[in-house]
Amino acid sequence: MEYFEKTIKEKEIYNGQIISLKVAEVEVPNNIKALRELVSHPGGVGILAYIDKDTILLVQQFRKPFEKVMLEIPAGKLEKGENPEECGRRELEEETGYLAKKFTYLGRIVSSPGFCNEVIHLFKATELYCGKIGGDQDEFISLHKIKKEKVLQMIKNGDIVDAKTISSFMFE
Amino acid sequence: MEYFEKTIKEKEIYNGQIISLKVAEVEVPNNIKALRELVSHPGGVGILAYIDKDTILLVQQFRKPFEKVMLEIPAGKLEKGENPEECGRRELEEETGYLAKKFTYLGRIVSSPGFCNEVIHLFKATELYCGKIGGDQDEFISLHKIKKEKVLQMIKNGDIVDAKTISSFMFE
Repeated sequence: MEYFEKTIKEKEIYNGQIISLKVAEVEVPNNIKALRELVSHPGGVGILAYIDKDTILLVQQFRKPFEKVMLEIPAGKLEKGENPEECGRRELEEETGYLAKKFTYLGRIVSSPGFCNEVIHLFKATELYCGKIGGDQDEFISLHKIKKEKVLQMIKNGDIVDAKTISSFMFE
Repeated sequence: MEYFEKTIKEKEIYNGQIISLKVAEVEVPNNIKALRELVSHPGGVGILAYIDKDTILLVQQFRKPFEKVMLEIPAGKLEKGENPEECGRRELEEETGYLAKKFTYLGRIVSSPGFCNEVIHLFKATELYCGKIGGDQDEFISLHKIKKEKVLQMIKNGDIVDAKTISSFMFE
């Protein structure tokens, strides 16, 4: 069964620095009307980076929606006109200080398809070498090098909960 | 390095049927001020349901943010006061028509920690038996029974992109 929700009308609620929000009235089958709250997001990139064959680079940063720090793979938003690989290489260097000789596409995920159009492209980075740490002046990030086995354990026991980080291992 | 972003002021932009949005001005280290756009979401549950030992129930539904149908594990939002297991059992029956004798907690994921506080609790359902299909009158869902091996292949080749679906296999 493939069906389509036709937009009857929509209203922009907010257009901000990263996301925008609109509310759409849609028509679903049987002429029923429904409301859809739609967050628009530029999308981003996450990088599963190996500093050696069994050690992964993770970054820890404060996440305001949860009021706490979280451990995740290096990641960032796509800038206007930027392609995912370019974005991934830039974010990896900004957040970890490393560049990668090998940068392989793993796949893409959608984080919350019920209300948000965010797509995250995942890459695997290997054969790393030193670049320089930089990046946004309002981002404070600490770098962690953790054995893959330990990372998988931290996923299972709930110490790592970020969906892009967890998903990235399904593409290796 | 653990640090905290103190809220200087915040403004509610929208308070809707599922999500709400506020914009906060925060103070990050070095007295720098930054803006955080924060989407609040009630959270939800996703269910990795096995109809037999190697066949999984997936649901296909139209996702307005992408203007297309997507294949995902059965899932739904937490109602007020509902606990995750209760929500998961309800959604599984509503979306697939099945009840489960065994309903095991797998873990939780956060879908987009940069701007949204959504948490999705993941369960594994086995020993299924027939209930009745029902649910929201504005949801149109088709049920698919797909071999696990094929599901894993569909993740790798990009036919399944939903993060909660992909993540659920990391907890088994």
